[in-house]
Amino acid sequence: MISKRAQNVPASPIRRLVPYADAAKAKGIHVYHLNIGQPDIKTPKQWHEYIQKFKTEVVAYTHSQGIKPLREKFAEYYHKWNINVEPDEIMVTNGGSEAILFALGVVCDPGDEVIVIEPFYANYAGFAAYLNVKLVPVTAKPENGYRMPTMDDFEKVISPKTKAILFSNPSNPTGVVYTKEELEIIANIAKKFNLVVISDEVYREFTFDNTKAISMFEFEELRENNLIIVDSLSKRYSACGARIGTFVTKNKDFYAAALKLAQARLCPPEITQYGAIGLLNTDEEYMKNAMNEYRLRRDVAYDEISKIPGIIAHKPQGAFYLSAKLPVDDSEEFIKWMLSEFNVDGKTTMVAPLSGFYATKGLGKSEIRIAYVLESEKLKDAINIMAKAIEAYNNR
Amino acid sequence: MISKRAQNVPASPIRRLVPYADAAKAKGIHVYHLNIGQPDIKTPKQWHEYIQKFKTEVVAYTHSQGIKPLREKFAEYYHKWNINVEPDEIMVTNGGSEAILFALGVVCDPGDEVIVIEPFYANYAGFAAYLNVKLVPVTAKPENGYRMPTMDDFEKVISPKTKAILFSNPSNPTGVVYTKEELEIIANIAKKFNLVVISDEVYREFTFDNTKAISMFEFEELRENNLIIVDSLSKRYSACGARIGTFVTKNKDFYAAALKLAQARLCPPEITQYGAIGLLNTDEEYMKNAMNEYRLRRDVAYDEISKIPGIIAHKPQGAFYLSAKLPVDDSEEFIKWMLSEFNVDGKTTMVAPLSGFYATKGLGKSEIRIAYVLESEKLKDAINIMAKAIEAYNNR
Repeated sequence: MISKRAQNVPASPIRRLVPYADAAKAKGIHVYHLNIGQPDIKTPKQWHEYIQKFKTEVVAYTHSQGIKPLREKFAEYYHKWNINVEPDEIMVTNGGSEAILFALGVVCDPGDEVIVIEPFYANYAGFAAYLNVKLVPVTAKPENGYRMPTMDDFEKVISPKTKAILFSNPSNPTGVVYTKEELEIIANIAKKFNLVVISDEVYREFTFDNTKAISMFEFEELRENNLIIVDSLSKRYSACGARIGTFVTKNKDFYAAALKLAQARLCPPEITQYGAIGLLNTDEEYMKNAMNEYRLRRDVAYDEISKIPGIIAHKPQGAFYLSAKLPVDDSEEFIKWMLSEFNVDGKTTMVAPLSGFYATKGLGKSEIRIAYVLESEKLKDAINIMAKAIEAYNNR
Repeated sequence: MISKRAQNVPASPIRRLVPYADAAKAKGIHVYHLNIGQPDIKTPKQWHEYIQKFKTEVVAYTHSQGIKPLREKFAEYYHKWNINVEPDEIMVTNGGSEAILFALGVVCDPGDEVIVIEPFYANYAGFAAYLNVKLVPVTAKPENGYRMPTMDDFEKVISPKTKAILFSNPSNPTGVVYTKEELEIIANIAKKFNLVVISDEVYREFTFDNTKAISMFEFEELRENNLIIVDSLSKRYSACGARIGTFVTKNKDFYAAALKLAQARLCPPEITQYGAIGLLNTDEEYMKNAMNEYRLRRDVAYDEISKIPGIIAHKPQGAFYLSAKLPVDDSEEFIKWMLSEFNVDGKTTMVAPLSGFYATKGLGKSEIRIAYVLESEKLKDAINIMAKAIEAYNNR
């Protein structure tokens, strides 16, 4: 009695190995979680301050598009990034997740196609299956440092059913920060075939080595009609459990259509919207410290992982992920083994198998994603344990 | 570039007349809002107490199915109602809305049909359009007090594509509380054609005149495999802005499929889940008072509305809604007129046109829904104003 669409929703590759981790923990083994983008950095105090001070007698529905003071605050934030959108072009969503669901729903009918750059944020596949949208992948290769595919690669997969391109920059899972020239490929394809760009810019703040996250908003030819930006406060403020995101567009038809979807589900929670205003009032110092911390972790993660013989990894420039090709035949099997058969002094490491981040069957089989969300010493220890596990696994 | 599915999502009939209300307010007219189920009863203090005392350093993702202490609390609550489900059969959702979206997604593919009793909760139409599911209505007539249609009525609309029956009891928008015999019709149809019953039991607590909300869980033949209960804390605790609902099922395949959808969107907010534990700790006294208050309002609303010449209305026995057929040709036009052309001493009334609660085109055109969510004096005044408006409208 289960629908085909639900059958087609893949189990989260990030969460489906959790039972193995739980079993390890039950045996008293400490598991380093590098599998999920759940940072250990403290959430800004402003979240709690706003939650504590906000107390209504009746916890009521808010406007479906989100409370105005929050949308104004978001507009102010976006203006700082030269994303010049007004409060009425911003919709508050239940996390970036709902913003992606709205974007796909507004643009695609069942059977329609959306181009993604694989490996991509794995939950895109779940949302697409739920809405019967087909993800059509263009592959970024580990040997090329997962850089942007060519114009030609994109043109090859265009069909009459292609409606949109969905991608993240900085990239989850690869940590790549695309250059202006790379993003022009997306803009050119979208313009040439009148596609909608659904630009996931959740990791905007996290860029290193003088790279800069360029918003698709900078492409004037897309800005007015062909662009939806999806965004989230989860990572920026280490507030994954806040579940506040945004759907941003200057296209009034997209906004109106998404608003109907938003009205059907009534509104995001009242209290978390007030907390979100607090988050957007976070001081620069907090952001600077968080960024420095992630840069340090990136360095540690990359240094340690580069030491593994036979690994293919490039230095990531943004987000807080690193994708790498391991010298193992099947990374998912390896991770299961690492959790159930391996430990160093009672500790082991969990990472995400990258095959679930690909739409093409068979790709990513030796690859993994590391979320460098733990502090340096733990991160170093976790990757060292994995290095030893690889050696032991290949010699077993 | 807008998808057909998004075009098919109807604008909320409850919210689409808001601009007329806003215009009235801009002219300094006071608008009584009987159009939306937003009660003015205070949210229990336990909500705020739990929110205030809960303060984590890192606002993190929770389990996708919701935190265990909350699911345990829900299980305890359901057991009190003889709905004997365990924490692992309960999933915490972003309001009842998301629970309905999960239920439809798990059971239906595009083109599949779901039977609804019209008039029905209007947002069912939005969710169905979003997921390309077809709602097939069986009509409950105002002349019959909107009681349950017959077995025959249901059998007539069954097709090979019928997958489920979705309905609310007590009913939003009619206030009908179905008897055991009426619910048996649903159970029998579901059993005969192996359909899934998606039972919306959000108004369980609100029943009057010795009626009782009978859960579909009482039907043993459905319980194990064919039943999904969708629920919400919004109305029960006057906490519409909390956005906490549940998806409840003993069918492990349904649960597993819904969990994949839940994992894709990660989790409900952390803080509201703790607040929800507070709500479930609300004392009996609060609930008793709320119920008495609603009973009083129901009496006032029904007494006042019965006085209107030519109206067809039956005394509602549950929820906090009353549907009625007005002696006007088009209730939506009448409501617009009441908001823009009519007032008594600077006050006017807003109700919801019922046509948006029907799937059959043309039905409900003279009907309205009143949400009796204001205190008695205001309610009385609001309905009196509407009575005068009807007279003036028909004599204009």
